[in-house]
Amino acid sequence: MEVIEEGDKVLFITSKGKKYLLEIRRGKRFHSSEGYIDLDQVIGMPYGSRIKTNTGSTWVAARPLILDRVLNFPRITQIVYPKDLGYIVLMSGVRCGSRVVEGGTGAAVLTTILAYYVAPTGKVYSYDVEEGHLKNAEKRLEKVGLREFVELKHGDLTKQIEERDVDAVILDIPTPWLAVANAKQALKDGGILVSISPTIEQVIETVEALRAEGFADITTVEILLRTLRVKRGMTRPEHLMHAHTAYITTARKAYKEGELS
Amino acid sequence: MEVIEEGDKVLFITSKGKKYLLEIRRGKRFHSSEGYIDLDQVIGMPYGSRIKTNTGSTWVAARPLILDRVLNFPRITQIVYPKDLGYIVLMSGVRCGSRVVEGGTGAAVLTTILAYYVAPTGKVYSYDVEEGHLKNAEKRLEKVGLREFVELKHGDLTKQIEERDVDAVILDIPTPWLAVANAKQALKDGGILVSISPTIEQVIETVEALRAEGFADITTVEILLRTLRVKRGMTRPEHLMHAHTAYITTARKAYKEGELS
Amino acid sequence: MEVIEEGDKVLFITSKGKKYLLEIRRGKRFHSSEGYIDLDQVIGMPYGSRIKTNTGSTWVAARPLILDRVLNFPRITQIVYPKDLGYIVLMSGVRCGSRVVEGGTGAAVLTTILAYYVAPTGKVYSYDVEEGHLKNAEKRLEKVGLREFVELKHGDLTKQIEERDVDAVILDIPTPWLAVANAKQALKDGGILVSISPTIEQVIETVEALRAEGFADITTVEILLRTLRVKRGMTRPEHLMHAHTAYITTARKAYKEGELS
Amino acid sequence: MEVIEEGDKVLFITSKGKKYLLEIRRGKRFHSSEGYIDLDQVIGMPYGSRIKTNTGSTWVAARPLILDRVLNFPRITQIVYPKDLGYIVLMSGVRCGSRVVEGGTGAAVLTTILAYYVAPTGKVYSYDVEEGHLKNAEKRLEKVGLREFVELKHGDLTKQIEERDVDAVILDIPTPWLAVANAKQALKDGGILVSISPTIEQVIETVEALRAEGFADITTVEILLRTLRVKRGMTRPEHLMHAHTAYITTARKAYKEGELS
Repeated sequence: MEVIEEGDKVLFITSKGKKYLLEIRRGKRFHSSEGYIDLDQVIGMPYGSRIKTNTGSTWVAARPLILDRVLNFPRITQIVYPKDLGYIVLMSGVRCGSRVVEGGTGAAVLTTILAYYVAPTGKVYSYDVEEGHLKNAEKRLEKVGLREFVELKHGDLTKQIEERDVDAVILDIPTPWLAVANAKQALKDGGILVSISPTIEQVIETVEALRAEGFADITTVEILLRTLRVKRGMTRPEHLMHAHTAYITTARKAYKEGELS
Repeated sequence: MEVIEEGDKVLFITSKGKKYLLEIRRGKRFHSSEGYIDLDQVIGMPYGSRIKTNTGSTWVAARPLILDRVLNFPRITQIVYPKDLGYIVLMSGVRCGSRVVEGGTGAAVLTTILAYYVAPTGKVYSYDVEEGHLKNAEKRLEKVGLREFVELKHGDLTKQIEERDVDAVILDIPTPWLAVANAKQALKDGGILVSISPTIEQVIETVEALRAEGFADITTVEILLRTLRVKRGMTRPEHLMHAHTAYITTARKAYKEGELS
Repeated sequence: MEVIEEGDKVLFITSKGKKYLLEIRRGKRFHSSEGYIDLDQVIGMPYGSRIKTNTGSTWVAARPLILDRVLNFPRITQIVYPKDLGYIVLMSGVRCGSRVVEGGTGAAVLTTILAYYVAPTGKVYSYDVEEGHLKNAEKRLEKVGLREFVELKHGDLTKQIEERDVDAVILDIPTPWLAVANAKQALKDGGILVSISPTIEQVIETVEALRAEGFADITTVEILLRTLRVKRGMTRPEHLMHAHTAYITTARKAYKEGELS
Repeated sequence: MEVIEEGDKVLFITSKGKKYLLEIRRGKRFHSSEGYIDLDQVIGMPYGSRIKTNTGSTWVAARPLILDRVLNFPRITQIVYPKDLGYIVLMSGVRCGSRVVEGGTGAAVLTTILAYYVAPTGKVYSYDVEEGHLKNAEKRLEKVGLREFVELKHGDLTKQIEERDVDAVILDIPTPWLAVANAKQALKDGGILVSISPTIEQVIETVEALRAEGFADITTVEILLRTLRVKRGMTRPEHLMHAHTAYITTARKAYKEGELS
C-alpha cells in the first residue's frame, strides 16, 4: 500500500467539497474556514484517508489527478475547461506517442493535459508569442513531472509551424484562421486540427479558412455541462452552470481538388 | 508520404457529410445515393485525397480515427456517446499504462476507446454477463488492432471483481450501486470510479451507495453537445440535438471514518 | 356541465400521446394506426371523457387550447415555437387591450397567439409582403374565432409602419434591422420591440441597429426546452430536443442623447 | 405624449445595464456607484429619455413593465423565474377573463403576473398557509394596481380548493401531489393544471398522482435560457446561466375510464 510521504502533493477535500492542493511538509499547519490541520499528520497514511480539523470537520486526503494539478494553476490567461479538454483529447485522437503542435501555451493547462496523454513516447510542441508564458509553463510542467514531453517554442503559429507530419494541431489563439494554412503543412495526412475560440466571429473566419484550404469533416460544437445535486428526496440540477467557455472546431486535413496533381 | 493500400480501412466523407467506413479491395465498387466509386482507385493516393463518384459528387478518402471505428460498430446495445467518452477518459485519468476494470462490455465501444488510451503498456479488464457480447467484442478489438490490451471476462461486476489496485473502475451496468463495494476493493488508493446511467433513479441509488462506502468527491453531471452550422451570413445551431444519453457519476476511492484503524 | 356538441373541434389524445384535432360530424369515422373511432359517439360527453377505438386503445376527448389550434395549422412557413411564444408574450407585456404591430404574418401562428392575448379590447396589426399569407391568415383567424382582433395588412415593415403609439412591435422577418427605425416611430414611449431570427448574423445586424437608434435594455436570448420522461424507476430526459429554433432579441424604445432637444 | 410625473415609478437603466426601480419625488436624490441623479429632473420628460448622472454616466428613464415590478419585489421566498413564467402563461392559456386558482402565494410574483393577464374581467384565487405571505401580497398587488383581480385566501391547496369550474390551477407548493385530486375537482372540463417543483422526486410523485387521477397530456419540461452578448466581432453567449430553477409539469383534466358512468 502506497502511503503519503513528505513532499507529496495531496488534494484535501473538505466536508463542504472545497479542495486544497497542498505539499506535505513537517511542522506546517494549514488554516481554512473549516478549521486547521497539521499537514504532517497524514504522513504514512494511505491516500483516501479521512482526517479531522481542529474544529471537527472531516477531510479526505486524496491523490491528485493531473486535472487537479492544472485546475490549481494560477490563471494567468483564460483556460480551457475540463468539459472541453475531454472532448479535445478524444476528437484529436491524441494519446501515448502522439506528436502534437499546440499554442498559445498560455497558462499551460491544455499543454499539460496533452503532455499527460502523449507521454512517455510522444511530444507536444507548444508555441507562444510571450516569453513569460513559456517560462511559466516550464515551471508548471516541471512541477507535475511532464517537462520532458513538451518542447516550448517562442513563436507565432500564424507565422510559421516548424514541425511536419504531426498527428494534431491545436489552436487556442485569437486569430486561428491565420494559422490554418500553416497547420495544414504541419499535419500528416489524415491529421486533425482543433481550434478553440470564445466568439462566433472567430469561428466563422476559421471555418471559412478551413474550407478554403480543403479540410474535411469540419465540425463546430459547444459543450454544456450540468451538475446534479443528488440526494434522495431532494435531487435536482445545480442552480448555476457555465453557459459558455468556447466553441470547438475540429477538421481533418484533406487536399483540395487538383492539389496533388 | 504514407498512401492508401489495399486492405486499408478508409473513411469516405461525401460532399453531403455522410461517412462510409470501407475496406479497400480491388475490383470492388461502392454504391450510394450520391453515385458510386471504385474502391481501388484510391490505392496509392495519400489520405485526404479527393475523388469523384460517377455522378460528380466529391468525396474525401480520410484516415479513420479510433472514434470512427467504434461509431461504425453495429449497435447491439445502447452505446456510450462521444460527448460522454471524452469526459470519461479525462475524469478517470486513464492513459498509457493504466489498468482499468470496465463492464458491461456491451457493444465494446467504451472498451475499445479505453484500450486505445491504455495501450501499449496498460490493460482493460472488461466484464460482461453475456458471452455473446464478449465474443463480439473479441472480433471488434481484433479488427481495430487492440485485442491484446483487453482481457475479456465472463462475469458480473455486482458479484465479484477479481483485479486489485486498478486505476479506475467504469460501470455501465443496470445496477451500478450493487457493484460499488466490489469496485472499492478493486481500486487502488486514490483510484477513480465512473458510473454511467440513463435514469435518475439509478443515479440516486449509486450516489447513495458511494456515500455509504466512503467515496469522496462524488459528482454527477450530464453533458449536452450542440453543433453549429457555420456559414458566413447563415450561422446558427443545428435544429436537433441529443437531449440525453446518460448521467455520468465520478468518485474517488476514500476510506470511511475509522475504516483503517 | 358543458358537453361536446356537433361542430366542435375536439383534440383527441391517444394512449400513445399522439394528438388529432378533429371537427365532430355525425356519421364520420376517423382511422388511425391505433384503430378507428366514430366521431359522433363523443357528442353529449363532457370534455375530458375517455373513449375506446375499435381495437381497444383508449383516447381522451380533450378541449383544444389556442396552442393546440395553432400547432395544428399546416406549416406553410417556419413557425414560432411554443417555448419561444411564451417568452415573447411575457417580455412584450402584450395582454388584453394591447395594440401590437407584427410581421411577417407567415403561417399566422404568432399572429393568432397575439390575437388571443389582446382580445377582446386590443388589436394586432399584422403585415406581410405576400398576399397569399394574408388570405391564409384570414381563414385561420376566422376558424379560431379571433379574426376581429387582427388587421391584416399587405405591406413591408422595412418600408413603413403606419400605426403610432403601439405597445409592441414584433419582427419575424428576414431583415429585421431594416425595420428598426420604423418600429421606433410606431412604438409608444416605453414600448417594446421583439425580434425573432434564426441566424446569428441577423442578430448582430439587428442589435447594432437597435443600439444606433437609441433602444435600451437590448437583450438577446435563446430558449432550450427539455422534456422529461417521468415514470417511477425509469425517469430521464427525452432523447432528442430542439437545439435551436430562433434567437429572440428584446429592447425598449428610448431616445438617443439629444434626440428630444 | 405621456410624460413622467411626480409619483410615477420609473425604471432607470444605467449605462452598465443595472436597473433601479424608483418612485419620482421632488427633492429626492438617488446615489449609485455610477454617480447620482436628482429624481425630479425627469418630471415632464417622456419615458425613454436619457439623463446624465453627476459623473457623466448616461441612464435611460424607462417605463416599468409588470415584469420589472415583480422582479423588484424583495424575495421572501423562492420565486418563479421569467423564463418559466412565460411558459406557464402560455401553457395554461390564462388571459383576460380567466379564473385561476394558484398557490402558494409566496412572494406574489406568479400571483401578480397571473393577475396582470386575467385583468380586467378574470380573477386569481391565491392560497397560502402563511398569513404573512398574504398580507405581503396584498400590499404588493395594491402597489402595482392589480389588487382587485386577486382573492387572497388563507388555506392549503392540499386540504381544500373551494372554487369550481376554474380554467387553471397552478401549484407552487412543496407537495403538489397531495393537491392533485382537489385540483381536479376545482377545474372545469378541459381545464389545465400546472405544477412547479425544484426537485425530481416531487415531479415523480406529482406525475404519478396525475396519472392516477386520470389527467391527460401530462408533460414535464425544464427551460434553459441562455443570453447572448452581441457586439460585432465579439459575439458569444454569456459566461454563466441558470442551470435550474424548476421543473414544470402541465396536464389536462380528464376522466378516468368509467368515472362518469
